Amino acid sequence: MIGAVLHAPGDVRVEERDEPRIVAPTDAIIRLSAACVCGSDLWPYRGIDKVTEPRPMGHEYVGIVEEVGGDVRTVRPGQFVVGSFIASDNTCEICRSGYQAACVHRVGVGGAQAQYLRVPLADGTLVATGDVPSDDLVPGFLTASDVLGTGWFAAVAAEAGPGRTVAVVGDGAVGLLGVLAARQLGAERIIAMSRHESRQQLARDFGATDIVTERGDEGVARIKDLTNGLGAHSVIEAVGTQEAMMQAIRSTRPGGHVGFVGVNHGVQLPGRELFSSHVHLHGGPAPVRRFLPELIDLIADRRIDPGKVFDLVLPLDQAPEGYRAMDERRAIKALLRP
Amino acid sequence: MIGAVLHAPGDVRVEERDEPRIVAPTDAIIRLSAACVCGSDLWPYRGIDKVTEPRPMGHEYVGIVEEVGGDVRTVRPGQFVVGSFIASDNTCEICRSGYQAACVHRVGVGGAQAQYLRVPLADGTLVATGDVPSDDLVPGFLTASDVLGTGWFAAVAAEAGPGRTVAVVGDGAVGLLGVLAARQLGAERIIAMSRHESRQQLARDFGATDIVTERGDEGVARIKDLTNGLGAHSVIEAVGTQEAMMQAIRSTRPGGHVGFVGVNHGVQLPGRELFSSHVHLHGGPAPVRRFLPELIDLIADRRIDPGKVFDLVLPLDQAPEGYRAMDERRAIKALLRP
Repeated sequence: MIGAVLHAPGDVRVEERDEPRIVAPTDAIIRLSAACVCGSDLWPYRGIDKVTEPRPMGHEYVGIVEEVGGDVRTVRPGQFVVGSFIASDNTCEICRSGYQAACVHRVGVGGAQAQYLRVPLADGTLVATGDVPSDDLVPGFLTASDVLGTGWFAAVAAEAGPGRTVAVVGDGAVGLLGVLAARQLGAERIIAMSRHESRQQLARDFGATDIVTERGDEGVARIKDLTNGLGAHSVIEAVGTQEAMMQAIRSTRPGGHVGFVGVNHGVQLPGRELFSSHVHLHGGPAPVRRFLPELIDLIADRRIDPGKVFDLVLPLDQAPEGYRAMDERRAIKALLRP
Repeated sequence: MIGAVLHAPGDVRVEERDEPRIVAPTDAIIRLSAACVCGSDLWPYRGIDKVTEPRPMGHEYVGIVEEVGGDVRTVRPGQFVVGSFIASDNTCEICRSGYQAACVHRVGVGGAQAQYLRVPLADGTLVATGDVPSDDLVPGFLTASDVLGTGWFAAVAAEAGPGRTVAVVGDGAVGLLGVLAARQLGAERIIAMSRHESRQQLARDFGATDIVTERGDEGVARIKDLTNGLGAHSVIEAVGTQEAMMQAIRSTRPGGHVGFVGVNHGVQLPGRELFSSHVHLHGGPAPVRRFLPELIDLIADRRIDPGKVFDLVLPLDQAPEGYRAMDERRAIKALLRP
């Protein structure tokens, strides 16, 4: 089969890889219906995360189950499934508390920009849809695997809800889907922070009521202006840099909540400022599995259309162009057809 | 009148000070029934917080109202009152959300190690007890002004409650009263981290079920041992140093809650570790006013006895000995009789 492999910063190649096989009796093999490039794939692509050996890329996936190991009970060949980028048993105490991304038996899933994928802990990781969905729903289901699940977790962590003003730092797919999640959770006002016109438009489509184009201290001042000088009740951080984290914390009112899901890079949080801010801080790799059943229903019922974040569709063998387009911010998110 | 004034690190003097007068119509003057030395007073006493000019000390207080300004409606002369170390209007949006320590009109209260004290924003800051209490209840009410209110906030921020295992980092008065709060909130298991026998005993009196004497990484390992390798559900941080903050974060299970109330000094939190930890982080200067009515009832009904944290009682003019005893950890907390 073919799959995308990162050899060095900026050097993604689509090449022949071994087809995955069942290794443990809890594994499943799926034939991917669609794959995509994640904002977090850009960290190693840009050389910010070290690349020490060729690395099969991709951790977002939907597809048809081809084969399951002897212990798999909840999914069977022929079903269309969505899974999380972290495999979990979904039975341990941490999973049962809703933190499947920190499952005591967790395993990362990798190499999903390919034709086939092995998913460990299939029973605890995969959720089947009712029927094999029509093609137009596939992109939406694919977002549930990571960017929608992550934006949703951020909105939940930020306690977005009725009567709340929610600010969103970051206009990538996760931030934009954080807007969608905040709207679904009933937020009254949603302020998207973006200076890109096409992303602003998508934010509005997803439910943003206000757009702030300023960043850093000026962005914080604008959020304060819009909230009687107090700051937002809920702030979603979907970037992962020092500037974005501080912008999020400073945009939040005392007693408010920051949901941070941008993969932190080089961030150091000043303890005294955090102490004085009275914000609640919560985040991390999203426990996507917690939200999958609900998200799958919302997508299947066409109540949300998160697939709109894909503004570039390429055949899998053109994955390098998907990386380039996202790196240069020409595309929000690239879908790859295996 | 006399009051304690810090002139330089280690140099506290009890000297003649001007008696406070009503300045604003929202002020009240109270005659202090008892005063005390706070663990946070040790930061400037030890020279870690700079002392640039003579500073009247003390921010914990209970007493009899002597006089009120023309706009004060809820307290009157002759009443016994308890107040917070931060004066608040208790009417702004932030106060109404329970964050009176971040009131938009907040003012610090200072100079309470004295005979009389001016309290700004009296209506929003002071709570009167039903009757003037008997002498033996006065120390308990005094703790409500800060250390009990702070320990209680930490336990609430850490979401201590039924079925939860709570670990407490810090065996000063705040940490010990965090144990008491966790017990009152219904925690199943409470692990006090202390290597001082008298403090361990008081922790047990307040409801601790386990004592851990190790610190840092070893302390974290012990908490993990006691919690099936997962960490505590709720951790109270009541110190404010880098070591204590990291010990608290690392002792918490994924999805668990850290309530941090030690005044942060030089703390830098590594963003990536916080991201990976999946903990909830919340804290800051306690909104004591939120809890005062409830705490006053618990103390008046003798359902809790937080006054036991005072293991040294001195006349006000011996305040310097109170500071020394606490600095040398000979005393948990010194009560001063004006």
